[in-house]
Amino acid sequence: MTYCVALKLNDGLVFLSDSRTNAGMDNFFTFRKMSIYEERSGPQQRMMVMLTAGNLAISQAVRQVLHSQLVDDGFGNPVGLWNCRTLFDAARLVGAAVRTVQQRDGEALAKNGVDFNVGIIFGGQIAGEAMRLFNIYSAGNFVEATLDNCYFQIGETKYGKPIIDRVVTPDTPLDEAAKCALISMDSTLKSNLSVGLPLDLLVYERDSFSAAQRICMDELNPYFQLIRNTWGAKIKDVFTEIEDPDWKDPKAAHPLLTRSTRHAEISVLSAT
Amino acid sequence: MTYCVALKLNDGLVFLSDSRTNAGMDNFFTFRKMSIYEERSGPQQRMMVMLTAGNLAISQAVRQVLHSQLVDDGFGNPVGLWNCRTLFDAARLVGAAVRTVQQRDGEALAKNGVDFNVGIIFGGQIAGEAMRLFNIYSAGNFVEATLDNCYFQIGETKYGKPIIDRVVTPDTPLDEAAKCALISMDSTLKSNLSVGLPLDLLVYERDSFSAAQRICMDELNPYFQLIRNTWGAKIKDVFTEIEDPDWKDPKAAHPLLTRSTRHAEISVLSAT
Repeated sequence: MTYCVALKLNDGLVFLSDSRTNAGMDNFFTFRKMSIYEERSGPQQRMMVMLTAGNLAISQAVRQVLHSQLVDDGFGNPVGLWNCRTLFDAARLVGAAVRTVQQRDGEALAKNGVDFNVGIIFGGQIAGEAMRLFNIYSAGNFVEATLDNCYFQIGETKYGKPIIDRVVTPDTPLDEAAKCALISMDSTLKSNLSVGLPLDLLVYERDSFSAAQRICMDELNPYFQLIRNTWGAKIKDVFTEIEDPDWKDPKAAHPLLTRSTRHAEISVLSAT
Repeated sequence: MTYCVALKLNDGLVFLSDSRTNAGMDNFFTFRKMSIYEERSGPQQRMMVMLTAGNLAISQAVRQVLHSQLVDDGFGNPVGLWNCRTLFDAARLVGAAVRTVQQRDGEALAKNGVDFNVGIIFGGQIAGEAMRLFNIYSAGNFVEATLDNCYFQIGETKYGKPIIDRVVTPDTPLDEAAKCALISMDSTLKSNLSVGLPLDLLVYERDSFSAAQRICMDELNPYFQLIRNTWGAKIKDVFTEIEDPDWKDPKAAHPLLTRSTRHAEISVLSAT
C-alpha cells in the first residue's frame, strides 16, 4: 500500500508521500512516489508535483509516458508538461498518459486477473494562473480541489483522515498544514504495516514557482521524531483528562445515564 | 455502512454499535445492530452480545435463525444459545446460522449480483469459563481475541482504529475503554456520513453475568456531547502546542532539514 496526501491552502500547497510498496505480504520494497517538475523562471514558469498510488508497474509506466508523450492541442501544436498553458491542461496530459498505459497493458493485465489500478494526485502552479490540485483516477478523468474540500488522499486514506478533517481549513498556515500531514501519516504508519518510511515532504509557497522546500525524512529525522513521540503522548494525556463515563451518578457533570428521548434501549433476550 | 467495536479487557467487555444502514446514498435507515442474551442466574448463567455489520437482510436472517435453530451436539442432544456449554460453542452456533442463511439465500443473491456479506462480533461469558470475544466472518468461521489483539471492529473500521491502537491494552479500566470506544466512534462519525446515531453502548463487568450497564445514546446525551466537543477541541490544542516545522533554522530544537543518511532527496525535473 501507499499513503499520499496533498493539501491546497490559501498560502500554498503541501505534498507528502510514503515510500513502501508491496506485492503480497512477503515482498516489500522502497519506492518513492513523488515526482517534481519545476521551471523557476521564463515564460513557461511552473512548479508541478505528482504523487502516485496503486499498481507500481502502472504508475511507473504512466510517469514514463507523461515525460515523453506530446499531445496535439487541436491546432497542430505538440503539447507536453513543459509547455501546456494551464494546470488543467497538465492534468489532462496525466489522464491521457494513464489512458495510453491502459491501452498498452490493460488487456494483458486483465488476462492475468490484475485490476488496472492507479491513483494520482497532481497539483502545482503555472505562471498566470492560481494554484490548482487534482485527483486523477484510473480512467484518466479527474476532480479538482475546492474551498470546501481542500485536500486529496490516495492509497491507505482512512486512518489519517480524521485529524485532517478536524484541523485543516484553507486558512491554515503552510507549516501547520505540513505538521498536520505528518501527523496524518504517523497515524497511518501506526495502523498499517504496509505504509512505510522514508517520507517525501514538499511545501510550496504560492507564486514562488520553487520546489526548494522539500525534504526526505526517515525515522532519524528530529522533527518526525518529535511528531511521532509528542503526538502519541499528548493524545494519551488528552484521553486521560476527559472524565470517564459514570454509570452510577445521574447528577454527574456529564451524565451517561440520560435515556434517549427518541430511541428505546435494546431489549435483552433471556432463555425463558 | 456500520461501525461496531468490541474490546476485551481484564476487567470486562465493552460493546459499541452505531445504527445507520444504507442501501445507496439516498436510502438511509436507522437499524440497531446489537443483540443481548442474558441469563442472570441458574446453571445456564450467561451474558452474550452480538454486533452485526454488512447486508442488513442477511444479518437479520442470521439473528432469526440463531434464535430458533438447534444444532445436534454429536450425542443426539439439541443445542442452542441458551444451553451451549462454552462461548466457543456459541460462536459455532452463530457460524452455523450464517451458513444456513447462505445456503438459503446465497444463490439468489449471487444471481442478483449481491455479495454474501456479513460481519459479526460475538462475545460474552458463560458460567465456568473466562470471558471470550469472537469475530465471525461471512463463511461462518471465526477468530478469537487475545492479549495481543484485544479488540475487534466491523464495518467502517479504519477511521476509528488509530485512537484504540494508541491507548488501549488489556489492562485498561472498563470505563476508560468505553470512553476510547466512544472517541473511536466519534472520529468515524466525523469522517463517514454513512455511520450514524443513536449509539448502543454496553459495558460488561467480568463475572457479573449482567447486561445492566447499557445505554442508548443520541446527540443529546450529555456524555456523548462531552466526548464530541472536548475531544475535538483538545486535539486542536495539542496540535497547536506542537511546534511547526522550521525550514530555515538547522539549529531548531527539532530541525526538519536533517538530510536522510540512507535515502536521497527526490530529484527535481526541469524542462531543459
